[in-house]
Amino acid sequence: MKLIEKSRMPVKRGRPGYDQDSVLRIAVEAFNEHGYEATSMGKLADRLGISKSAIYHHVSSKEDLLRLALDEALIPLESVIDEVQVHQGSADERLDFFLRATFRILISKRSYVTLLLRLRGNTELERNALDRRRAMDRQLAQLVTEAQSTGRLREDLDPRATARLLFGLINSVVDWFREDGPIEAEDLENQAITLVFDGLHPTQK
Amino acid sequence: MKLIEKSRMPVKRGRPGYDQDSVLRIAVEAFNEHGYEATSMGKLADRLGISKSAIYHHVSSKEDLLRLALDEALIPLESVIDEVQVHQGSADERLDFFLRATFRILISKRSYVTLLLRLRGNTELERNALDRRRAMDRQLAQLVTEAQSTGRLREDLDPRATARLLFGLINSVVDWFREDGPIEAEDLENQAITLVFDGLHPTQK
Repeated sequence: MKLIEKSRMPVKRGRPGYDQDSVLRIAVEAFNEHGYEATSMGKLADRLGISKSAIYHHVSSKEDLLRLALDEALIPLESVIDEVQVHQGSADERLDFFLRATFRILISKRSYVTLLLRLRGNTELERNALDRRRAMDRQLAQLVTEAQSTGRLREDLDPRATARLLFGLINSVVDWFREDGPIEAEDLENQAITLVFDGLHPTQK
Repeated sequence: MKLIEKSRMPVKRGRPGYDQDSVLRIAVEAFNEHGYEATSMGKLADRLGISKSAIYHHVSSKEDLLRLALDEALIPLESVIDEVQVHQGSADERLDFFLRATFRILISKRSYVTLLLRLRGNTELERNALDRRRAMDRQLAQLVTEAQSTGRLREDLDPRATARLLFGLINSVVDWFREDGPIEAEDLENQAITLVFDGLHPTQK
């Protein structure tokens, strides 16, 4: 949590009107619109309406921006598993908690998660972020395995494949959910959880 | 189907060793690795080991490559809804058919679908492809609505949100499924269908 707090602190350098956070936010918009590789620091400076050297008051390189942006998504997502470890519930309740907590981060950190989900692994930094995503896949698969072993989850599903499919379903909200859309975030969260645990068929459980 | 057949026909132009299909396949690999905007025709020529003018024997522009690539994904995906229309089954069986047919196209057209799913809507061509994706969302939502109205599906889920979540789950396989991985495509398809219809909780239906 400390790292997040640090990156949120307004940095009093560069032109008035921009702190590191706002430079980061606008950079991530540009990366998401045109792709990270296609967005040069020159294009970013144009978008911000400041000089390239003014950007370098805030960050040391384009890769530094990417690193900060990825941490905005990865650090809170990774913290979910720590919260799950101390959660006092049955394995399926902990899985429910994991999915809901992840969902809420996806909504609140949407643009940063979008960037994370589009990484291709072309640099060490990108590969490191992909490794951290894979670690989360394994943690979710572990939760599924535990819930299966206690009889709270159907046992005919492969835990790794299930973890990937669950992330696929939940992660997709960053692509299409709109705050001003026809469904509220809270309703969507509940519907996603119902779909995941109870399925589309009418239930008599 | 006619359009697919046409784009599959080897075009006897350009350097030996490349036809339009193989140029397209390698271009899509490059677009997926570095982003469409960051991949210039010059970079593509380097990757193919031919001159830029040799590429223009096969296609008239980079956008032409994108158009052909997107049709490789969109045309078969759109044909699924036509097949569903003539399917003689209950509404939930037709939904099952829709999801399985889509899953198989995602696996067989993986790199083209990956490109489609990463589009940002920066040009008219991209926006048109996104419109075609949204039309598929509506068709899937319509199938969900029909299945709900006949009592074959739980009625507490919003059809539009459900359609998006289902596509999220199914589409995610292009990001992680490997032909040489621990799970076969057929098993994964069955597990995804079980998860979607019956959910994670053990069933007594």
